[in-house]
Amino acid sequence: MTRSVSLICARTCYASPVSQASLSRRNALIRRRNQCRFSVYASKDSSGPKVAIAGVTGAVGQEFLRVLTERNFPYSRMKMLASARSAGKEVEFDGEMYKIEELKEDSFDDIDIALFSAGGSISKKFGPIAAKKGCFVVDNSSAFRLTEGVPLIIPEVNALSMAEYKLGKMHGGIISNPNCSTIIALVAVTPIHRAVGIKRMVASTYQAASGAGALAMAELEQQTRDVLNGDPVTMKIFNLQYAFNLFSHNAPMTDNGYNEEEMKMVNETKKIWSTEDVDIAATCIRVPVMRAHAESINLTLCSDLDEKDAKEILRSSAGIKIIDDRANNCFPTPLDASNRDEIYVGRIRQDISQPGRTGLELFVCGDQIKKGAALNAVQIAELLL
Amino acid sequence: MTRSVSLICARTCYASPVSQASLSRRNALIRRRNQCRFSVYASKDSSGPKVAIAGVTGAVGQEFLRVLTERNFPYSRMKMLASARSAGKEVEFDGEMYKIEELKEDSFDDIDIALFSAGGSISKKFGPIAAKKGCFVVDNSSAFRLTEGVPLIIPEVNALSMAEYKLGKMHGGIISNPNCSTIIALVAVTPIHRAVGIKRMVASTYQAASGAGALAMAELEQQTRDVLNGDPVTMKIFNLQYAFNLFSHNAPMTDNGYNEEEMKMVNETKKIWSTEDVDIAATCIRVPVMRAHAESINLTLCSDLDEKDAKEILRSSAGIKIIDDRANNCFPTPLDASNRDEIYVGRIRQDISQPGRTGLELFVCGDQIKKGAALNAVQIAELLL
Repeated sequence: MTRSVSLICARTCYASPVSQASLSRRNALIRRRNQCRFSVYASKDSSGPKVAIAGVTGAVGQEFLRVLTERNFPYSRMKMLASARSAGKEVEFDGEMYKIEELKEDSFDDIDIALFSAGGSISKKFGPIAAKKGCFVVDNSSAFRLTEGVPLIIPEVNALSMAEYKLGKMHGGIISNPNCSTIIALVAVTPIHRAVGIKRMVASTYQAASGAGALAMAELEQQTRDVLNGDPVTMKIFNLQYAFNLFSHNAPMTDNGYNEEEMKMVNETKKIWSTEDVDIAATCIRVPVMRAHAESINLTLCSDLDEKDAKEILRSSAGIKIIDDRANNCFPTPLDASNRDEIYVGRIRQDISQPGRTGLELFVCGDQIKKGAALNAVQIAELLL
Repeated sequence: MTRSVSLICARTCYASPVSQASLSRRNALIRRRNQCRFSVYASKDSSGPKVAIAGVTGAVGQEFLRVLTERNFPYSRMKMLASARSAGKEVEFDGEMYKIEELKEDSFDDIDIALFSAGGSISKKFGPIAAKKGCFVVDNSSAFRLTEGVPLIIPEVNALSMAEYKLGKMHGGIISNPNCSTIIALVAVTPIHRAVGIKRMVASTYQAASGAGALAMAELEQQTRDVLNGDPVTMKIFNLQYAFNLFSHNAPMTDNGYNEEEMKMVNETKKIWSTEDVDIAATCIRVPVMRAHAESINLTLCSDLDEKDAKEILRSSAGIKIIDDRANNCFPTPLDASNRDEIYVGRIRQDISQPGRTGLELFVCGDQIKKGAALNAVQIAELLL
């Protein structure tokens, strides 16, 4: 059964249109997006899987619902799970109201696919329980990303690594969603890696507030209002002023002087590419942007690749949109990528600090909540069908 | 003659305190800075040089006046110069009101030192005229930076390159102030270069609005208000939304796919270090921050250097303040560096993507208007005395 529904877009003040040379096209797109009530067909169908959302009240949880609807994800039953604090509240999905249930051990007794985004400790506790009961857990936390035997999947990159994970063929299991910065970088650079091999990658990130959740986004907004009003700023999520400022990612520091966010990019890339033979360094910085990350990426290649060929390789690769108009100085921005499925890639150029054609630089942007989290997880769930 | 004056600090809403682990210390510093009316001694003295400011109404022009006062710069006469549009307006300096004069060919007839920040075309036209008349021009534009015979100076780095430039010893000349991003990077990395040699530098910048002038800062502020109010944003300085967004630097693109801002870092560094034997690549990005730039810098060294030794080298170097507290996740931010003289350096760590101790990563912040422009120029002027 399909049904026409009306979805109200997330607030559009932080989302601007696809970047194009012409300002008027940008503005027309902004207007269109601001009007964006649109109709989609959801697919509640008795033959579809029974789906649960664990952590439905969070920023990613809410995005799960939008993405499932957008992508017409088939389901026969939907269960909304969150902490006891949210139990009893209601949430709308696909034109129906659902009562939120407390996440418990028996929550997954009759569930085929569970999308988890309720934090690492919830995943650690309930993920294995759900999987043991025959449920496929797509986990957005870092809990199992580096666990041997747990696939770590970006569908455009390594879908084959979960080839045997299929509803009806396997009795449940856990599949991990990589960290947002890893997903955004690897959608962009894996086609280059496949073509000529990447020997070394140096990334500097420009990470949006959404990576720290809905409360961090609200804090950035409130602090910005306070600064503009000349009022003192309140710091709850971060211990630094975020408005009109930026700072080194607040993830815990590891012994080597890199923080855990940076080491995720290092270790997850090696697992996803199934190789130890790549050197990676990252500097992760939070910037006062709402929901899309940017990354400046410098690559050392295993063999020569001309920048024009690199651009063509990327143009024909899945999940990528190229904005690389040198004549008009038009390149990806976080607002271009906000609320979009694709990773936006630009500033594709031969690195002048490396000999010949052995180096390449890129600037990429991707929606942190969407492709960096919810969309990638739903794409993984689609691979289970 | 010295005189006590009262200086009102620039709006402090965009300037936060030196980063320390404790939030209360930060807050105390914010309070102190918000109260910051302080007394300095300026030194109008008949034996001092006759000084002119060309472009006094701009963001850097105004900062020249603050820095000259802060540093007790000696002068016997002060001349305020700007375009015909501003002529006749008044500006306060060191407790006196000055009428702004139109910048003309004869403006420098009786001037010893002229600080220029009125754009490249004004520098190109009037710089050589002033120098020919025996005036020392300290030029903040890019007009002469790469001109052979014109010193390009960061006092902490290469003061000796202008050793013969002295009032009374030489009959005028032009000295160039490097680009802000170059100054901020090189104050931080030159001590490392001196110690072990830098073979390659890869930088990604996080550049503040001030680099595009006072109108760009105002545009960022206004756009931010508009976004928060749900109003459409107006784009005058940039053709992109700047509020809650970031974008590739709008400097014209060069043939190699790097923009002019990026190539400044490449070419100026080679001139300042007097070597072609260093490979440099930069990605310059504008972020919604008001007046201090940040840079993520990755270095390939000519020989091994331990991160601890690097930290000690930097700690004892001029113009640097280290904030590098891994235990408390406390590192430099643009707000720490705002209105400060020093370049703030942190995240000093051995690069895990390079073998042994041959790679180093840093994260640096510096005030774009102050050390990136006005302060560096005034320091150059001090070398003339």
